Amino acid sequence: MNVEVINTGTEILLGSVLNTHLATLARGLFPLGLRIDCQVTVPDGDAIREALYTALGRAELVIATGGLGPTTDDITREITAELLERPLRFHAEIMDEIAARFAARGLVVTERVSRQAQVPQGATVLPNEHGTAPGLYLRCERDGRERHLFLLPGPPRELKPMFENFVLPIVQQLVPPSAVECRVYHALNIGESQVEERVGKQLLAIPGLELGYCARPGEVDIRCIGTKAVLAAAEKIILEALGQEIVTRDGLPLDQAVVERLAQRKESLATAESCTGGAIAHRVTNISGASAVFLAGYVTYSNEAKARDLGVPPDLIAQHGAVSLEVAAAMAEGALRRAGTDWALATTGIAGPTGGTPEKPVGTVCIALARRGGPTQLQRHRFFRDREVFKDQTARTALALLLKTINNS
Amino acid sequence: MNVEVINTGTEILLGSVLNTHLATLARGLFPLGLRIDCQVTVPDGDAIREALYTALGRAELVIATGGLGPTTDDITREITAELLERPLRFHAEIMDEIAARFAARGLVVTERVSRQAQVPQGATVLPNEHGTAPGLYLRCERDGRERHLFLLPGPPRELKPMFENFVLPIVQQLVPPSAVECRVYHALNIGESQVEERVGKQLLAIPGLELGYCARPGEVDIRCIGTKAVLAAAEKIILEALGQEIVTRDGLPLDQAVVERLAQRKESLATAESCTGGAIAHRVTNISGASAVFLAGYVTYSNEAKARDLGVPPDLIAQHGAVSLEVAAAMAEGALRRAGTDWALATTGIAGPTGGTPEKPVGTVCIALARRGGPTQLQRHRFFRDREVFKDQTARTALALLLKTINNS
Repeated sequence: MNVEVINTGTEILLGSVLNTHLATLARGLFPLGLRIDCQVTVPDGDAIREALYTALGRAELVIATGGLGPTTDDITREITAELLERPLRFHAEIMDEIAARFAARGLVVTERVSRQAQVPQGATVLPNEHGTAPGLYLRCERDGRERHLFLLPGPPRELKPMFENFVLPIVQQLVPPSAVECRVYHALNIGESQVEERVGKQLLAIPGLELGYCARPGEVDIRCIGTKAVLAAAEKIILEALGQEIVTRDGLPLDQAVVERLAQRKESLATAESCTGGAIAHRVTNISGASAVFLAGYVTYSNEAKARDLGVPPDLIAQHGAVSLEVAAAMAEGALRRAGTDWALATTGIAGPTGGTPEKPVGTVCIALARRGGPTQLQRHRFFRDREVFKDQTARTALALLLKTINNS
Repeated sequence: MNVEVINTGTEILLGSVLNTHLATLARGLFPLGLRIDCQVTVPDGDAIREALYTALGRAELVIATGGLGPTTDDITREITAELLERPLRFHAEIMDEIAARFAARGLVVTERVSRQAQVPQGATVLPNEHGTAPGLYLRCERDGRERHLFLLPGPPRELKPMFENFVLPIVQQLVPPSAVECRVYHALNIGESQVEERVGKQLLAIPGLELGYCARPGEVDIRCIGTKAVLAAAEKIILEALGQEIVTRDGLPLDQAVVERLAQRKESLATAESCTGGAIAHRVTNISGASAVFLAGYVTYSNEAKARDLGVPPDLIAQHGAVSLEVAAAMAEGALRRAGTDWALATTGIAGPTGGTPEKPVGTVCIALARRGGPTQLQRHRFFRDREVFKDQTARTALALLLKTINNS
């Protein structure tokens, strides 16, 4: 079954927001054995017409997002009705739900909002549990084949639950069960060509393995798609050649792996962040269940804060500089002591664009991992990145150090 | 001039990464008066052929990203050469640069990497300052019109500088200067239909104004495009009707506005975060120059940390609960005192999915803003969101409270 996704949204094409729908849809469809063959973004308004017509000519499953809202540039519903020759009918039930939703929030239903109760004839209505615009599911025929068209609302918080709760169960009925799985290996602090040099030839020799790479700064994802047996053969090769670099191998995001492993061991974490500025704490606390393992975080941007909050001796900073292995170690040990945790991660570095010196250029970073009753581990790196990426790469490297240390102990 | 963007990347269609290129390209093209009319994502491999052919038939400017790398699924260069009938030539200069780059990092040049020195005949080479694959610019004719095709590398850190430094100067020569500007107003804690109800009719009555809305949880962007005079008329209406809700009006992101305003006033900030878990510190420290204004952040997830690090009396927590206006105030005032800053922001709330009670359901959040020598401001909200969005909306609401207070004082 060919799958196409159409995202409407002038704001996406203007660069005001990122398209997060595609990832939501792709991750939901994959376990059903479905891949998105093509994705198109068009502006709000009439461009959806040609995009819908083209997609329905190429794919059996078409998912269009956006353009179902109350404002004047939301016309996906109307254009679909016209294109498929299905007149719009007013649904009193939908209107009642919209009215109840508005009443609960003390809002008045406007005429614009009531357009959302119009439904093309023959469409299945998909409930919207987080907003007013319902989704729509239409079957139609084109070139002698049945086509399935889903229209979903644009706001991510409305689209995601609707897709998971109402679209996927319908799609699941349309396709046979899938025997193929996807496994993604995250390799840290290595380049794409080095990864392919070490494993590419051997992996490509496995029949039935679909292999892909995706490089981000300091990180390469190795994506393997195939049956269980094929994936087992691939894993053997990957772990033998890249065992040191692979951080997670179950598609589990690094942050989640850290929180889950700490929770299993009933161990706790504190952070002492200078150059990452709260990025590690933010990542860890994005994971549900973080409160059981993450006790305290210190963002000590200034030298005074390093001394006051973490007990780093001012002499040590004067002697070695704030960006030094010595100060990183003192930060981690200070956070461990103060928060009384089992582990403490510290970062200090020069995120740039200013603040570099010939001895410590922009991008220099020192990472320390202190553990209760154990030695403090230290790493020094230089990451050649802009500010946000530098913070991100440093945070990931620090968390990877923690995860590897936990896994090896 | 019609513009189309083609992004290649199986990882995007599998949902492993978000497409950030589109925003980079859109934001760079807009000031030249150019809008992206259509964007397409295709998998790595042969699908780029049809996408390129179709785009060159519809648009005068086509930008394709990805598929220039060293791995086996990178074939954009080869397909373009074939499609435009421009044989590939080996460029010794590019090879020298790649070799120098590898040598500087102690890496060995592999055969795969040397494919990146192949250039379709007649192409202009665009230097890659952050990677090995150069970009390519080709002119061709189709249906009697000249077409401009840019091939850019997939990694964002390589694409962005190449696009800004080498692509935009070429494109600028192709188009007349633009008289149209874009202004985006961020309105916080208001819904899309309420915004349109208050300003939609009046704005649509302005001739020559292109209006758009983009809703995110608790936030609506109002996008106005037009000449200076048109934008001035629109601004008057928007500020009169939504003055309380508008957080920024110059397209300046909230975080950057906070850091810039604090820097102008030579004032400093500390944060005391419970439910946002470092998100505020992370946002603030993403802005270059943050170190001048952001002195210290405390992520006090546990009650013990609130007491120990911020001096919140344990009795206060016992009496009112950790999620209360009283504790939020004590956190902010504690951080202000401890860090000696001019301002301190505190958050405490229930991010969920667990931890709610009938009196304080999931989504409840208390925000406090303490200032040196001034009264502490308090806000209580309930945000109906999942964990990450809840953190994000709370962080934005807290920063908006700070920005508005600064602007009004």
